[in-house]
Amino acid sequence: MNTNPHRYCVIMCGGVGSRFWPYSRTSLPKQFIDFFGTGRTLLQMTFDRIRPLVEPSNILVVTNADYAHIVREQLPDIEESQILLEPCRRNTAPCIAWAGSHILALDPQASMIVTPADHLITNEIEFQTSVRRGFEFVESHDALLTLGIHPTRPETGYGYIQIGSEVEPGISKVKTFTEKPDLEIARVFVESGEFFWNAGIFLWSVRAIAEAFRNLAPDLAREFDKGVDAFGTPAEAEFIREHFPACPNISVDFAIMEKAPNVYVECVDFGWSDLGTWGALYDHSPKTEEGNVTQRCNIITYSSTGNIFAVRNEKLIVVSGLHDYIVADSGDALLICPRAQEQEIKQMVKDVSDRFDDRYL
Amino acid sequence: MNTNPHRYCVIMCGGVGSRFWPYSRTSLPKQFIDFFGTGRTLLQMTFDRIRPLVEPSNILVVTNADYAHIVREQLPDIEESQILLEPCRRNTAPCIAWAGSHILALDPQASMIVTPADHLITNEIEFQTSVRRGFEFVESHDALLTLGIHPTRPETGYGYIQIGSEVEPGISKVKTFTEKPDLEIARVFVESGEFFWNAGIFLWSVRAIAEAFRNLAPDLAREFDKGVDAFGTPAEAEFIREHFPACPNISVDFAIMEKAPNVYVECVDFGWSDLGTWGALYDHSPKTEEGNVTQRCNIITYSSTGNIFAVRNEKLIVVSGLHDYIVADSGDALLICPRAQEQEIKQMVKDVSDRFDDRYL
Repeated sequence: MNTNPHRYCVIMCGGVGSRFWPYSRTSLPKQFIDFFGTGRTLLQMTFDRIRPLVEPSNILVVTNADYAHIVREQLPDIEESQILLEPCRRNTAPCIAWAGSHILALDPQASMIVTPADHLITNEIEFQTSVRRGFEFVESHDALLTLGIHPTRPETGYGYIQIGSEVEPGISKVKTFTEKPDLEIARVFVESGEFFWNAGIFLWSVRAIAEAFRNLAPDLAREFDKGVDAFGTPAEAEFIREHFPACPNISVDFAIMEKAPNVYVECVDFGWSDLGTWGALYDHSPKTEEGNVTQRCNIITYSSTGNIFAVRNEKLIVVSGLHDYIVADSGDALLICPRAQEQEIKQMVKDVSDRFDDRYL
Repeated sequence: MNTNPHRYCVIMCGGVGSRFWPYSRTSLPKQFIDFFGTGRTLLQMTFDRIRPLVEPSNILVVTNADYAHIVREQLPDIEESQILLEPCRRNTAPCIAWAGSHILALDPQASMIVTPADHLITNEIEFQTSVRRGFEFVESHDALLTLGIHPTRPETGYGYIQIGSEVEPGISKVKTFTEKPDLEIARVFVESGEFFWNAGIFLWSVRAIAEAFRNLAPDLAREFDKGVDAFGTPAEAEFIREHFPACPNISVDFAIMEKAPNVYVECVDFGWSDLGTWGALYDHSPKTEEGNVTQRCNIITYSSTGNIFAVRNEKLIVVSGLHDYIVADSGDALLICPRAQEQEIKQMVKDVSDRFDDRYL
């Protein structure tokens, strides 16, 4: 199938994945792991999903410089020039401002989709249909488009988008973005039919996003304007090493989406999870008869149900009398924690850092 | 201190330690592990304990040929000729028959102590006093002497020795050996004051044990008699490789001690454990405030009590909400099992073997 050569994709791939510690480590975060034992990592699955929609040479991966070698290894077909290396971590707004400036320099008529590298999408056909519609919309409207996922449960771990007036079937103005709600509110949201999960997947033309940065984040826009002659040239990397660290640590949601007047939501339904929690991983993974989920390991269980076993390298786990735990192992670190306490893992990782610096991170 | 040059020690060091799987592995059994984080393995602790009692050059280590390199590494001061390598596993009777023949060839006036390599003894001063007494007794009597440990609880995991008439203060004829009793019987044993734990530590003169084999296990004696010219010479190893496999798989308790007329027990009390179970290890190990025992690992616990964490190489364990479990890790295998189920670990290891052959053993 021919793809529109003005369409680009930016895969954001710089996260550290601390919520899956120690299965996911700073040295090998979640997006680089074959979470479902399919032989493809989450980054590779994301790339595979985008490939039918965008010329492979138009797919950019933005990641931290530390992960350059992993990206090269996992995506051997992309050129060095398609990997944008952030010298430091600065959240999504600087990442997108840079990627937008980069693409604008290559093709001022470009449109682009921005997607995290570490989400799960189960219905890829529906995903492709939705994304094509989104591209068509942003190519014919001055619009910043976000994908809103039809909610299937009152999830308190996601942000929600309230839809306003419909401008086309399935595409509406955004009324409000809301933070993660409590359960009561989440239930009301879901029942209302007006609220959708904010997937953090965006589409826009490079002109529209550049304009939005100029109007709503002028400091950031000015920082990147200084490099206008460098983008798309060999001077770009040096410019970024010098100027990127000066960018504020701010999300594109906060800097742009919540403020722009031309924000739209396409309501979609393609089986999405941000895989942001062990619970989400558990829900989306195949299970043994006893309701255990295993990640790349051999296992023998006795009276053990509802556990997640996430270890590497075909390690053997023999477990007896364990119910609803997370068992995650990375060779030099082992976590054993009730699934119900997964919210506390972040604090545990902090405690590990306090006691052992970054030795086990 | 001068030691009697006719005294010898045989350290039996060939066990596979499957009860501590996977912390103890076929490739590195229990006796070769630094179980208490002291910097000395159980074998080394055994050697250290014997050293003041027997000339170091008179200490022999009998082990499986597979473990020769570990013994050499852990006991660098002993000569190659002090390591007796069994070409296959044949229980304690052939091991002791060989060691006895070996020592008899070196010194017909010798007396010897036979001790497992993997027991814990906490009061070494008392141990030395007891062993010296034992040596004196067997050097002046035609006696096979076993050490009987004063029982401190109705342990069902040990065999018991019932004492008969006292022949010297603390040394009695043996009335009966009994197998592992059930709890009810064990209680009666302990209350009676007549029963002592069978520690499997023996003393005798080489003449007395040779005589016992000749009378009570003539087949075995004949097998070793064939090598009478080889023992203590370079031909010994070849003789053993050829003849040892023909020996029956039989314990010295069954072959000799339970049948011989001249069996005596020295009643001792030096803080002994065979460390045969995780429970024994737990009981004898220092504990954190929460009652957790750690083996060579870093640990952060939340609401977790009464566990044993046995992992290697300073691995970090972060654990929450776990009580009274065994967590044992060897890199490529992890066991998580309630302490109360430790008797079932043997079956689990069998299941591992059935499913994965010896890959994880």
